[in-house]
Amino acid sequence: MTEAFDAVDIIRIKRDHGTLSPEQIDWTIDAYTRGAIADEQMAALNMAILLNGMDRAEISRWTAAMIASGERMDFSSLGRPTSDKHSTGGVGDKITLPLAPLVAVFGVAVPQLSGRGLGHTGGTLDKLESIPGWQAYLSNEDMLRQLAEVGAVICAAGTGLAPADKKLYALRDVTGTVEAIPLIASSIMSKKIAEGTGSLVLDVKVGSGAFMKDEARARELAETMVALGKDAGVNTVALLTDMNTPLGLTAGNAIEVEESVEVLAGGGPSDVVELTVRLAEEMLACAGVRDADPAAALRDGRAMDVWNRMIEAQGGNPRAALPVAKESEVILAPADGVLVGLDALAVGVAAWRLGAGRARKEDQVQAGAGVRMHAKPGATVRAGEPLMTLLTDTPDRFERAREALAEAVVIAPEESRPAQQLIIDRIA
Amino acid sequence: MTEAFDAVDIIRIKRDHGTLSPEQIDWTIDAYTRGAIADEQMAALNMAILLNGMDRAEISRWTAAMIASGERMDFSSLGRPTSDKHSTGGVGDKITLPLAPLVAVFGVAVPQLSGRGLGHTGGTLDKLESIPGWQAYLSNEDMLRQLAEVGAVICAAGTGLAPADKKLYALRDVTGTVEAIPLIASSIMSKKIAEGTGSLVLDVKVGSGAFMKDEARARELAETMVALGKDAGVNTVALLTDMNTPLGLTAGNAIEVEESVEVLAGGGPSDVVELTVRLAEEMLACAGVRDADPAAALRDGRAMDVWNRMIEAQGGNPRAALPVAKESEVILAPADGVLVGLDALAVGVAAWRLGAGRARKEDQVQAGAGVRMHAKPGATVRAGEPLMTLLTDTPDRFERAREALAEAVVIAPEESRPAQQLIIDRIA
Repeated sequence: MTEAFDAVDIIRIKRDHGTLSPEQIDWTIDAYTRGAIADEQMAALNMAILLNGMDRAEISRWTAAMIASGERMDFSSLGRPTSDKHSTGGVGDKITLPLAPLVAVFGVAVPQLSGRGLGHTGGTLDKLESIPGWQAYLSNEDMLRQLAEVGAVICAAGTGLAPADKKLYALRDVTGTVEAIPLIASSIMSKKIAEGTGSLVLDVKVGSGAFMKDEARARELAETMVALGKDAGVNTVALLTDMNTPLGLTAGNAIEVEESVEVLAGGGPSDVVELTVRLAEEMLACAGVRDADPAAALRDGRAMDVWNRMIEAQGGNPRAALPVAKESEVILAPADGVLVGLDALAVGVAAWRLGAGRARKEDQVQAGAGVRMHAKPGATVRAGEPLMTLLTDTPDRFERAREALAEAVVIAPEESRPAQQLIIDRIA
Repeated sequence: MTEAFDAVDIIRIKRDHGTLSPEQIDWTIDAYTRGAIADEQMAALNMAILLNGMDRAEISRWTAAMIASGERMDFSSLGRPTSDKHSTGGVGDKITLPLAPLVAVFGVAVPQLSGRGLGHTGGTLDKLESIPGWQAYLSNEDMLRQLAEVGAVICAAGTGLAPADKKLYALRDVTGTVEAIPLIASSIMSKKIAEGTGSLVLDVKVGSGAFMKDEARARELAETMVALGKDAGVNTVALLTDMNTPLGLTAGNAIEVEESVEVLAGGGPSDVVELTVRLAEEMLACAGVRDADPAAALRDGRAMDVWNRMIEAQGGNPRAALPVAKESEVILAPADGVLVGLDALAVGVAAWRLGAGRARKEDQVQAGAGVRMHAKPGATVRAGEPLMTLLTDTPDRFERAREALAEAVVIAPEESRPAQQLIIDRIA
């Protein structure tokens, strides 16, 4: 067939700081998906986009073209509002687990399509798979039925959503072009919009353990995604939240499920509770629900009821004992003082090296592996007290986990600076 | 085997405005040549180099690594100095044809490895192939023998020189990364240095018909190449020359050979003579020859003698009639006045469309096709006088050639500005 455009012309426009037309963008995504643009051409274009940027209209069209490359889900038959949450990924970020059932308590359906971990940030599906019997893979029909009956589902994204994004992401991963804000934003939002949610709350992480180390770039990403959501008719809000310190006291798989259940039981670490409640309030507001009190639904067991039904609906036993790591080692505080730093990246890398994450897509994770923290920044510690417990089934991993943590802990004679706010800003 | 570096790390360094180490550059060229870096990774790296640049040390090492990817020629057994000329390409640029035999008159061997045309600029080999019997392909042994016996050779570059450049150029061509100055400079200089010439004169064209439209960029390219030559021990000088107007009165293949023979006979257009003599003086000076008078060697037939022997040594008959196009059309001056503009790009595109050039590498060129000009800027013209003659074997090409020339000619009531100097600057 005769092509509407030439790939080299498209690359040159972006290379020379030009703007791509809607027709050029539609052709680019379609031609790449069907192989008429070669990988080396798309790689050059991606690098030009990373270095020279795209304007709002270009990113919006790019996202729409990726959505058009696959199927779109439709939850309108449910007859109630839908809302979803997406986190850009952090260490100890188990918020999706208590959040999805908590929001469902208030009559909002939560179709939460999730992924697996790669690198130092954990994956929601990996965490839930530590629950005996739980299944990540649902057909679209089963997903719709569970949303109707339980109100919340956390499952793997089907392969039919935004296939262009799947091909493009694999290319970006090997060509040093993952970090382009237009490409990150369109990748996330194409899947979320194709998924068919009516509203969306984004948790954009900033700090050492986040994909974005820098607040200005995180803010730009958040603003870009909020605009993309609105362009597509999805009521979208973003929170910028701190990820210099892990969320909660656990980073792993089964131990994060355990902590999530504590939150659903009305307890749990205060930062996990604070962020869960705040995100629930945002999701409910986006979905048009007023006068809801999510904190009460954690305290009075309504959220736990939905959790139990949600896990059971996917074959899991919410009351079964969770896997426990075979081996453990304790890291002790080296001095008296106030714990002023506990680096999220270091803890994430340690948990990953202990077996909680995977180095390659085809690796298996250990359900019981990870890092349990006994103190968080602001706590007074004494030399020789346990600071962290390292957990793994394979003790030869302890040494490299300890190496990752060598510089992670900072103890000062006294609190030297005010603690970072967990919720930095709200972008709507 | 275990690789010394990771391709994504190399891409990220250049993407983030960093500097590649010598070891990283050596690995990159070697790994790409043997396929350990994929085309899509090299494409992303090339775009990052195009947009973020490389410093002198990086370009020098990149060039050395490309030379090391293949064989190096050695003319030291000749026992006399060698000199070569490279033009970045223009319209009507037949200078190599009279220049190589002219320089050989003075005892300097000229090993002129040349290429074919692609796009609107002609190729030296295409022009010479219009001479009945002439062969472009010589073995290294035949080339050396001809240099010893005749003193000058113009032939196709062997495939053994800088194979990394060959692979890289093909990739750049389809990924919009041809225009990176570090990559252009290293591509040209790796082949010229591997070829083994002792000295080199670069003719860097500036203007509408040149690869570089902009003088500042042409100057940067010239300075970069001169520095690369010196780093490699090759005595290198560059001239910046004007390419807003075609060189001479012909743009094609056989008609450019005809004009070259006129110059070798002591006649020919003044701009072709001026540039040929000036480049010969530069080459002779670079090769250490003093007190030579190249203009005299054109007038007295010594250069023609070498030309005849050079063509014969490669199977050609320098006295045979050249091919003539089957069809012609004349373009008339639309008004009385002074011809103040004759756009090189337009004339080049017209000659290309008439069949003198090729659209794809595998196309054949027409020996007789091209554009013959009857006036150059500065000439007084009268309405209805012939300005140009279009030549082709396939008359359906006239219409698109005329379209290319629609805006090419500017006639003013009187000379409106001083003519552009042919030789703009010298960079050593």
